[in-house]
Amino acid sequence: MRYLLDLGGKRIRPLLVLAANRAFNGSQDAALHPALAVEMFHNFSLMHDDIMDGADLRRGEPTVHTKYNVNTAILSGDVMLIYAYKILINLPEKSKVQCIEIFTKMAEEVCTGQQMDMDFEQSLEVSIMDYLKMIELKTSVLIGAALQMGAVVAGASTQDAYHLYQFGKNVGIAFQVQDDILDTYGTTAAVGKNIGGDIINNKKTYLYLKACKLLSESDAEKLHRLYSSDLENMEDKVKQVKALYKTSGVQHYADELKQEYKNLALSHLQAVSGLESKGKAYFEEFADYLIKRDV
Amino acid sequence: MRYLLDLGGKRIRPLLVLAANRAFNGSQDAALHPALAVEMFHNFSLMHDDIMDGADLRRGEPTVHTKYNVNTAILSGDVMLIYAYKILINLPEKSKVQCIEIFTKMAEEVCTGQQMDMDFEQSLEVSIMDYLKMIELKTSVLIGAALQMGAVVAGASTQDAYHLYQFGKNVGIAFQVQDDILDTYGTTAAVGKNIGGDIINNKKTYLYLKACKLLSESDAEKLHRLYSSDLENMEDKVKQVKALYKTSGVQHYADELKQEYKNLALSHLQAVSGLESKGKAYFEEFADYLIKRDV
Repeated sequence: MRYLLDLGGKRIRPLLVLAANRAFNGSQDAALHPALAVEMFHNFSLMHDDIMDGADLRRGEPTVHTKYNVNTAILSGDVMLIYAYKILINLPEKSKVQCIEIFTKMAEEVCTGQQMDMDFEQSLEVSIMDYLKMIELKTSVLIGAALQMGAVVAGASTQDAYHLYQFGKNVGIAFQVQDDILDTYGTTAAVGKNIGGDIINNKKTYLYLKACKLLSESDAEKLHRLYSSDLENMEDKVKQVKALYKTSGVQHYADELKQEYKNLALSHLQAVSGLESKGKAYFEEFADYLIKRDV
Repeated sequence: MRYLLDLGGKRIRPLLVLAANRAFNGSQDAALHPALAVEMFHNFSLMHDDIMDGADLRRGEPTVHTKYNVNTAILSGDVMLIYAYKILINLPEKSKVQCIEIFTKMAEEVCTGQQMDMDFEQSLEVSIMDYLKMIELKTSVLIGAALQMGAVVAGASTQDAYHLYQFGKNVGIAFQVQDDILDTYGTTAAVGKNIGGDIINNKKTYLYLKACKLLSESDAEKLHRLYSSDLENMEDKVKQVKALYKTSGVQHYADELKQEYKNLALSHLQAVSGLESKGKAYFEEFADYLIKRDV
């Protein structure tokens, strides 16, 4: 547990709890509980997901099951999930139950998202709606719940906390769509990872699923074949898939989709009645920071 | 999740929640929540423990990771742990937080017990105190917490609920010591499993650890060698270990220890002030049922 936590990461989720809490003029002492809980939960899910995905590296270092062993990673993950609850129990009475409820709903959804993601690898028919639901559950509800708990702890109205949740969730989805775009169209320098990983690993991203719909039957068939084959020359595969993406015009749709989710997020932010414009400007800046106008 | 739950099992833990609740004249509707939660948690821990122990069979059928795969067993276990909380959240307000606290403390302890059990396999120096702590955490606190939550939901005093917890915990330890005795001295017909499994698998049980202390240096050395070796003839190994146990007189100590924990349990039961003698008689009978006078 300590090993993985000490590797750091951006710790953006606890930051969001604290930011929402501050925006509603809450006391930081109370907000530290959900802040710690979301980071603990996030690390639990990384630890177990890394086993399931067979991932060797996390934050540039060996994953827990690689450095120690699978049993250690299973049990340590379990304990981190329990610790998240242990931390939430120490919240003041007035927001305790509500935070535990928000947290539990989120936790179940994240696991459901992970199951969908694994199912998609085997599935031949993944719809775009399924895919968007998967990224909503696997990564975005945690962003939303972090903001929501921060607001709840500060004593925001249920309605305001809910709008902030929706803001965070939709920013998260937009960010994930952008992540798909960057994986194909970014530069290693800007993105900080190798480009084309999704294509190489046959990942059914929005780009892939939408391109299949947009392309002519024969081109879609070609794309499908490229994804099924284990080509030796990966550089060539990436090039061919990108050429088909270009033919399909999918990048434009992806940019539009990202912008739609961002707009939806911003409209929820506007609907928060208990926030001054300074508070709203902070979260708008956060959305701008995460979701660039062009990639 | 459904597969493992449908295999049944004795469901003794939810029964204990309901029994404690009824003894304090609680409403069964409320008690069903912690009853379901403890069974859900128990199955979560079986599902993950079976992966860690590499167990092929559970309740006479293939374990989840054998029938499906390890990833499914990890994620399904995670969700069962989250479901346990989801169920507890539906408790009436007046006992909700207290039950979630009892549950969370128990959950952390059970995981710690499982970690100790795994560590003992590698460790050369396991003390009897460590061993007793391990069985307390891994299996007994859940029995205690089941009774405690049943009492809390029924509105029993904190003190009474705590005594019932201690009753259940100590019955659980006595039962586990008896389980060690039966594994070596029982009959397959009476116990329902093959005898000598602990010896064959070099399990550091109370019998083994205490015998090491009781025996002369040379006999202890011999016992140690038998446990380190991979003898071809297992029947012979069991016979030799049992002969050394006889020399040590360990069976007598084990019987006494079991009785001590049972007595401790009964004294906590007596200390419960809000229970009529009929209610106490029920739990005494339960203790007698689990812990036989002789094996």
